Amino acid sequence: MSLRLPEVPPPDQGAAEAARRRLDRLTKPPGSLGALEDIAARLAGVQGRPLPAVERKLALVVAADHGVARQGVSAYPSEVTGQMVRNFLAGRAAVNVLAAQAGARVMVVDAGMLEPTYDRRVLDLRLGAGTADLSRGPAMSRGQAEEGLARGAALGRAGLDADAVACGEMGIGNTTAASAIAAALLRRPAVEVTGRGTGVDDAAFRHKVAVIDAALAALAPDPDDPVDVLAKVGGFEIAVLAGAMVGCAAARRAVVVDGLISAAAALVAARLAPAVRPYLFASHLSVEPGHALILDDLGLAPVLDLRMRLGEGTGAVVALTVLEAACRVLAGMATFEEAGVAGPVPREGAT
Amino acid sequence: MSLRLPEVPPPDQGAAEAARRRLDRLTKPPGSLGALEDIAARLAGVQGRPLPAVERKLALVVAADHGVARQGVSAYPSEVTGQMVRNFLAGRAAVNVLAAQAGARVMVVDAGMLEPTYDRRVLDLRLGAGTADLSRGPAMSRGQAEEGLARGAALGRAGLDADAVACGEMGIGNTTAASAIAAALLRRPAVEVTGRGTGVDDAAFRHKVAVIDAALAALAPDPDDPVDVLAKVGGFEIAVLAGAMVGCAAARRAVVVDGLISAAAALVAARLAPAVRPYLFASHLSVEPGHALILDDLGLAPVLDLRMRLGEGTGAVVALTVLEAACRVLAGMATFEEAGVAGPVPREGAT
Repeated sequence: MSLRLPEVPPPDQGAAEAARRRLDRLTKPPGSLGALEDIAARLAGVQGRPLPAVERKLALVVAADHGVARQGVSAYPSEVTGQMVRNFLAGRAAVNVLAAQAGARVMVVDAGMLEPTYDRRVLDLRLGAGTADLSRGPAMSRGQAEEGLARGAALGRAGLDADAVACGEMGIGNTTAASAIAAALLRRPAVEVTGRGTGVDDAAFRHKVAVIDAALAALAPDPDDPVDVLAKVGGFEIAVLAGAMVGCAAARRAVVVDGLISAAAALVAARLAPAVRPYLFASHLSVEPGHALILDDLGLAPVLDLRMRLGEGTGAVVALTVLEAACRVLAGMATFEEAGVAGPVPREGAT
Repeated sequence: MSLRLPEVPPPDQGAAEAARRRLDRLTKPPGSLGALEDIAARLAGVQGRPLPAVERKLALVVAADHGVARQGVSAYPSEVTGQMVRNFLAGRAAVNVLAAQAGARVMVVDAGMLEPTYDRRVLDLRLGAGTADLSRGPAMSRGQAEEGLARGAALGRAGLDADAVACGEMGIGNTTAASAIAAALLRRPAVEVTGRGTGVDDAAFRHKVAVIDAALAALAPDPDDPVDVLAKVGGFEIAVLAGAMVGCAAARRAVVVDGLISAAAALVAARLAPAVRPYLFASHLSVEPGHALILDDLGLAPVLDLRMRLGEGTGAVVALTVLEAACRVLAGMATFEEAGVAGPVPREGAT
């Protein structure tokens, strides 16, 4: 394989263990902050310091168009991709509002929209003017998939100023591509991983499942070759996001996974570079059935249960607040000694 | 019954419907923000305005001691209640750190600690120097329970400056009282609603269950009389919190329920004044088994899944951020018309 991705270091176990020791001395029963404690210790390992911080926060929103949108798999037309990108730039989409509350910046990347925005605030990593229609042939060439991964990796490693990155996307038709990736890599029939995306009706849902099954049968992507899967049924934004996740991990940034499409990118990244896995944090549990299956495969537990299905990074941005809370608890709480609080009572006969 | 609680108005359905209509015009597929949309519409009804706001945020932490703590039902001695209250005042406990991040103030109330703090920053609503040991007789008199409810109600209605109140507590032994309340009001055996609290071992857990079952058998609280249940097996902080929830609802404040003890207070409040229910918002799902059962009885779905079991209002304070996010989305996002984004494609043959 000609693809070269940056090397991802293992998390710093010493820092994670130091964080765990401090967590056990804080004024609360050991483990009683649950996932907040796990997140704090994991972030210590990710950042290689016993007191990690999530101060520089970023919502990375990668946009692209999908040839398969012509097959009626989405409730919306492809032109909405570009319209929503302009909405992001105007600061009026859901991800903007939620990012502002979380104190996160929003970076918009064009990985291959039908038409460029010609707006300087959009980072141009275009791989083409939308993918080809995966119901007629491969969505992109292997070279395009590798180029997307490489561009994303360079961005994630060196192009971002962030401790934690909420990974989102915009692309009409991309739940079809993401569901197809999930079906291929998890070796499941389309009906088990496919949902209603932006909200298609029963007939369109059945059509969407049939399109995915037919594409997987016709293109036969190799489940042991994530680049092949990405090229045949993926999307440009998924390629760039998967690469960006590898690059973020290489630079010791926490990667916060959003909904189905973001999770599909994480699955591709983790299959390409298993060392990425400790850098991944789940955010919410989407209503898309493929989302839970991918998170399960990655061993990730979501912290929010909001029944969201919007994408853009909206769930991941809300979860940035939870990661920040975990860091603040670790650094800001008093220890039992500092506060003069008694520990557990020794019990007669207790072991 | 001599108890008089403030009247709770029904939510403003017109405001809630206006919020729903706006949510459907925002630049996202209808319903795609899931629970955030439901919360925004509910808050509109609670506050009686189509654009609700959660700006003034408060963590209300009510502390008290429990006679039953002498029976070895907790891993910690009663003196920890007072020590932790001093930790709250020093701003170094988990609830302080999480409240600071959420932009919430912390108010500490003494509902009946073993000893007063003699600190002017603590609101004195003391009902006694800790409850009596519920394994030997009623925890308090009916008069004390009513007084706690009335003092809490007055505080919640007129004594708080907040749009939304995260309702927390501190009291060594209070998972025993809360579990007993849940068992009585939900008519379930103690073993189904009882957990390990601060983290007791197997033997102490079995003892805790036995203490609750024996107390319920001996005291026979009337499940149709929540004041009787509260008096016989409750706690002073639970009485004041339950009253505060009624008072908050009367003043159209959103009430954010924390873990098991806070939920037990909400159950008492809702049984006393069913009109309180629309003002209650769940935050996280605790590992205490009684928590899920109470939330289910109240028809509340938690938004956070953090496996927390600390109390203090820690989960509720994190959820304040989610309530605020819901309001910001409703007010801050562009509509389809404003943003010039196309709506769904009409489908051939679609109904």
